[in-house]
Amino acid sequence: MSDTILADMTALLDDLTKPKGSLGKLEDYALRMAGIQGRVPPRADRRAVFVLAGDHGVTDEGVSLYPRDVTAQMMANFMAGGAAVNVFARACGFDVYAVDAGVATDLPAWPALDPERSAPQESGGSPGFFGLKAMRGSANFARGPAMTDRQFATCLENGRRLALFASRSGYELVAVGDMGIGNTTSAAALLSALGFCPDDMVDRGTGIDDATLERKRLVIAGALDALGPFPAGPGGAARAGAAFCGPELATAAGLMLGLADARVACVLDGFPITAAAALACRLNPDAAACMFAGHQSRVRGHRPVLDALGLDPIVSLDMRLGEGTGAVLGGFVVGLACRVPAEMARFSQLTVSKAPSDEVDY
Amino acid sequence: MSDTILADMTALLDDLTKPKGSLGKLEDYALRMAGIQGRVPPRADRRAVFVLAGDHGVTDEGVSLYPRDVTAQMMANFMAGGAAVNVFARACGFDVYAVDAGVATDLPAWPALDPERSAPQESGGSPGFFGLKAMRGSANFARGPAMTDRQFATCLENGRRLALFASRSGYELVAVGDMGIGNTTSAAALLSALGFCPDDMVDRGTGIDDATLERKRLVIAGALDALGPFPAGPGGAARAGAAFCGPELATAAGLMLGLADARVACVLDGFPITAAAALACRLNPDAAACMFAGHQSRVRGHRPVLDALGLDPIVSLDMRLGEGTGAVLGGFVVGLACRVPAEMARFSQLTVSKAPSDEVDY
Repeated sequence: MSDTILADMTALLDDLTKPKGSLGKLEDYALRMAGIQGRVPPRADRRAVFVLAGDHGVTDEGVSLYPRDVTAQMMANFMAGGAAVNVFARACGFDVYAVDAGVATDLPAWPALDPERSAPQESGGSPGFFGLKAMRGSANFARGPAMTDRQFATCLENGRRLALFASRSGYELVAVGDMGIGNTTSAAALLSALGFCPDDMVDRGTGIDDATLERKRLVIAGALDALGPFPAGPGGAARAGAAFCGPELATAAGLMLGLADARVACVLDGFPITAAAALACRLNPDAAACMFAGHQSRVRGHRPVLDALGLDPIVSLDMRLGEGTGAVLGGFVVGLACRVPAEMARFSQLTVSKAPSDEVDY
Repeated sequence: MSDTILADMTALLDDLTKPKGSLGKLEDYALRMAGIQGRVPPRADRRAVFVLAGDHGVTDEGVSLYPRDVTAQMMANFMAGGAAVNVFARACGFDVYAVDAGVATDLPAWPALDPERSAPQESGGSPGFFGLKAMRGSANFARGPAMTDRQFATCLENGRRLALFASRSGYELVAVGDMGIGNTTSAAALLSALGFCPDDMVDRGTGIDDATLERKRLVIAGALDALGPFPAGPGGAARAGAAFCGPELATAAGLMLGLADARVACVLDGFPITAAAALACRLNPDAAACMFAGHQSRVRGHRPVLDALGLDPIVSLDMRLGEGTGAVLGGFVVGLACRVPAEMARFSQLTVSKAPSDEVDY
């Protein structure tokens, strides 16, 4: 953040008609947003959530409670407006984009948006759809890398295209969410390959039993042995990404890298998206500067990864749903933090008008 | 909560198209709201914040950084829409009511609402005003009770009138905020009289120095000695209320008691309002069932009081501003929790319509 922006934003916050610092973390968020956008006050009124969907070959190992078809069914739910993220987005003022980053099955022929254009002026609140199917689900990483290096590069590039779409469309804040049966397994393996302790990363996901949990552990341990080692640095990170990412997580990493380049704030959802963020930050350490942690999820591996990224979760409500729900709610708070300096009365305005016609000094 | 409502609400939450329990505390909030309202799903779309303002004679002891006139100046700021709570309310969908519960000085002649009627249909988003000045600031409790028993009863009654106004106006959720220079001193003394450890209750408020903090401690300790003892039970609580409440805190307690009687959910702001809640719950232990803790403030005495009330703060953002800001943000989350069961698709709906015209089984 430039010293000027920091000084200007701090001066503005201290000029608002409230005790200094009394809005706590909201003031920190406003400062960070000013730094990201390079303007005082920052703005986050125009907001979108991208729900990236993809399938995972590792579900063949029986690591998840839900059949893989649920990914495609939930895409239909997003497009119909009936999923949790749709409700959150309507309440919190976010446009919804559902992205087929690599769902295994064919999806209905929804009219697809072109990522090289900008958002349609009049969506009437309906979710937009992007068809960016880089593969029909990833390969089973218990038997080899989840995707080829070339597929991994395609996913990153697809994510960067979405970031350009977001920037071109004027979005000031982008929430990133995920849908993919099996993706807590993928995320745990990816994070382990990036150096996090595997035992801390493996959790029950959507509610699996002890036997499934143990299988999940063994599958990940075996794959780390077979596909590693993963050296520190961007090369090793890319290798880890191709080894373990589902298409939605690799696309999410690309989206975050693109948003960082475009200086658009990015709000992370839960554990899988935070794994993608860890990957993005390993590929480009500058990416973290544009990230907010939307929430602290109930998945146990989430917190150590947020700590490593230096991110403090905005809300903590024991959610573990994904889809971008936590990112949307956290992003709403960041939006509020930006409205405060834009809309509050200031001490330096010598008069603050009162209703109906009087004026008073502050 | 009736067993039927609990069972119906639980069944609905588990029928939503998401993993069971995956919305964490939001599901708890929806359950509590169903219990309060006695309907499934509950609603919290129509929301208001009442900012209760009053002055405190104890400011004569030099316990606050700000002059007492700021209370009236901030009332003007609320009415002009330029205070933090106005920004929060616009962003979070709350109507704002500024209440002169006992400001020391004359306020401008704003058109006052009649608490015996209901909210005007068309406010155009402008704050409403209630003139319920029970006194011109409380007396200095360093020299005697802050108010007479009769004044205390008047404040409680004024609060109950506001609750009836809220209920009659169809508000489904009411945030309660405060404005009163000196009211963390009043709240700390009140809570000490109610049995909390005085050393845990005294904090720096809006940022006082060590000498002022020590003075605040001594004033409270002296007044507890002089005006006590305060026996357990409603009688002692009423005596503590008259001894230490400013008019806005006594009115807040009455508002909470009235909301509980009307089964309207009430969201608490920070330390002073939580002190009023502790008083209300001592006067009527059933009142807690309708309360939510909007946030955890940075004031150190806040947490032990919330714990004693059995309330878990919804957000925790290191705010310590008052005005209802934390209550509005927390109340927004409760509103979202109510929208989820009302708007999400359900597994038991055999078909979920997709765009543009297909349907899919869940």
